[in-house]
Amino acid sequence: MSAFKKIIPLFDRVLIQRVKAAERTASGIYIPEKAQETLNEGLVVAVGPGAFVDGKLQPVALKNGERVLLPPYGGSAVKVGSEEYLLFRDSEILAKLE
Amino acid sequence: MSAFKKIIPLFDRVLIQRVKAAERTASGIYIPEKAQETLNEGLVVAVGPGAFVDGKLQPVALKNGERVLLPPYGGSAVKVGSEEYLLFRDSEILAKLE
Amino acid sequence: MSAFKKIIPLFDRVLIQRVKAAERTASGIYIPEKAQETLNEGLVVAVGPGAFVDGKLQPVALKNGERVLLPPYGGSAVKVGSEEYLLFRDSEILAKLE
Amino acid sequence: MSAFKKIIPLFDRVLIQRVKAAERTASGIYIPEKAQETLNEGLVVAVGPGAFVDGKLQPVALKNGERVLLPPYGGSAVKVGSEEYLLFRDSEILAKLE
Amino acid sequence: MSAFKKIIPLFDRVLIQRVKAAERTASGIYIPEKAQETLNEGLVVAVGPGAFVDGKLQPVALKNGERVLLPPYGGSAVKVGSEEYLLFRDSEILAKLE
Amino acid sequence: MSAFKKIIPLFDRVLIQRVKAAERTASGIYIPEKAQETLNEGLVVAVGPGAFVDGKLQPVALKNGERVLLPPYGGSAVKVGSEEYLLFRDSEILAKLE
Amino acid sequence: MSAFKKIIPLFDRVLIQRVKAAERTASGIYIPEKAQETLNEGLVVAVGPGAFVDGKLQPVALKNGERVLLPPYGGSAVKVGSEEYLLFRDSEILAKLE
Repeated sequence: MSAFKKIIPLFDRVLIQRVKAAERTASGIYIPEKAQETLNEGLVVAVGPGAFVDGKLQPVALKNGERVLLPPYGGSAVKVGSEEYLLFRDSEILAKLE
Repeated sequence: MSAFKKIIPLFDRVLIQRVKAAERTASGIYIPEKAQETLNEGLVVAVGPGAFVDGKLQPVALKNGERVLLPPYGGSAVKVGSEEYLLFRDSEILAKLE
Repeated sequence: MSAFKKIIPLFDRVLIQRVKAAERTASGIYIPEKAQETLNEGLVVAVGPGAFVDGKLQPVALKNGERVLLPPYGGSAVKVGSEEYLLFRDSEILAKLE
Repeated sequence: MSAFKKIIPLFDRVLIQRVKAAERTASGIYIPEKAQETLNEGLVVAVGPGAFVDGKLQPVALKNGERVLLPPYGGSAVKVGSEEYLLFRDSEILAKLE
Repeated sequence: MSAFKKIIPLFDRVLIQRVKAAERTASGIYIPEKAQETLNEGLVVAVGPGAFVDGKLQPVALKNGERVLLPPYGGSAVKVGSEEYLLFRDSEILAKLE
Repeated sequence: MSAFKKIIPLFDRVLIQRVKAAERTASGIYIPEKAQETLNEGLVVAVGPGAFVDGKLQPVALKNGERVLLPPYGGSAVKVGSEEYLLFRDSEILAKLE
Repeated sequence: MSAFKKIIPLFDRVLIQRVKAAERTASGIYIPEKAQETLNEGLVVAVGPGAFVDGKLQPVALKNGERVLLPPYGGSAVKVGSEEYLLFRDSEILAKLE
């Protein structure tokens, strides 16, 4: 993708950065990439303005900076420079993590 | 999953802990794991704020601590540390148990 | 299923006990199990509080103790101890019997 | 089916008795069963109270005793003693016959 | 079908008689049946009272005697004596012909 | 089709005449029929009265004489004499051309 | 397509020009066409008047000149002269880029 500074999701979409799995064990030993777990955890990076439902704007149920539980499939992968993001509709996100 | 203390389901989702099958018979003899029944019983661990239906917030029909009857399929499996949970929409839960 | 006394269906679901087929002929002769008819008749054992339709609670169209005609397929089988029950949405039940 | 006197269809369902095909020709000769036409004609035997549409009860568009044109497929077959009936939603019935 | 005088379509259905293809050329020569075109033209023979949409009766958009353009598939074939008719929902009819 | 002067589309349908591809190159040389492009361009020849949406008549978004961009598939082909037309719902038409 | 100056999308459609991938590397070396990335970035060239939702006109969420993130599939390809465009419904566009 070219030199854009900001991705603004449309409607009820949220831009998610997947949380990377641990690269070391608790005791500090490096885990080979293949053995690293795929986490279904994400960080909300940007949210859309919400979608219109029955003529009323329904704001997105998530805020920037929130940690979320991602569904095992779905979402649109987006690459910005070397970073990879995912776009989901907020109703696809399973839960918030605190 | 990393060190989160709380999973807060979104919309009309409920977080369920599946009730484990008996590991011993009534008379106290251990049942080998393979012979243990899979129970379709669960415990409500957390509930979402409800979903918007026709512009109105519809609260979730279940409360924490309630025992429920799970459908034979469906739900999203979530692993937190060594614990496994399931996320269902409340309308997928078949019945409450008392 | 563990020691629960009551199954309370959720939303517009009804708990049904299938009526067992005759084990003897009218003249009193035992019918071998394989030759017994499967009846599509059931007894309403418990009903849910109703489902929300267009924001209004729509009560279940059936009452405990009513005899009903079951559809040939569908419903979720539930086992409580040695008893087997079926859970249907009330709109799946075909007719009442009087 | 056991000794019930009445089948009361639920919601917008109608209980239909299929009109039997002629067993003799106009000139009185018996038609072998295999050569008898299957008629898509039925007699309304019982009607439900109607279904709720947009929160309002929509009464069934048919009355007992009316002759109707049945769709080529669909409906649930119900056997009461030696009699066979069909249950349709009223919107599945094609036309009335007068 | 038995001796009925009238087919009254239900809801938004219309009873259509398919217009037969020409059996002779313009110059009067007979066209063999196999070479006759299938026309997608029909004559409205009877119309239903209309269907309820959002709680309001929506009258049928066609009148008896109107010529219409039929879709290439769909509709329920009905035989009355030696005559064949088709039943369509009015929204399936493509156009009127004048 | 027989001798009708006018096709009046029903509901939200529009009657479209496909724009024929060029039969000659810009320099006047004939293009063999097989090499002629299929254009997805059409001319609106007739429009319906509109469809009822939520109980209100929604007029058709196109007018006679407008040039439109057709979707790559869909529409019902209609033959009137030697002319071929297409019937689309107005929501299937992609764009207007000016 | 013939000599039209303007494509006006209908309803909630937007006309998109796909952003071409870089033909040279940052250091100025030409990238062979096959090795050029397909970008999922587009430029909004024209927008429709919006679609009617629940009887109200819902304007399109995008404006001419905006840069957008396209979904990996979908959209209708349109060729005008030597230029290729894509038509999407605005709800299919994933995000705006700034």
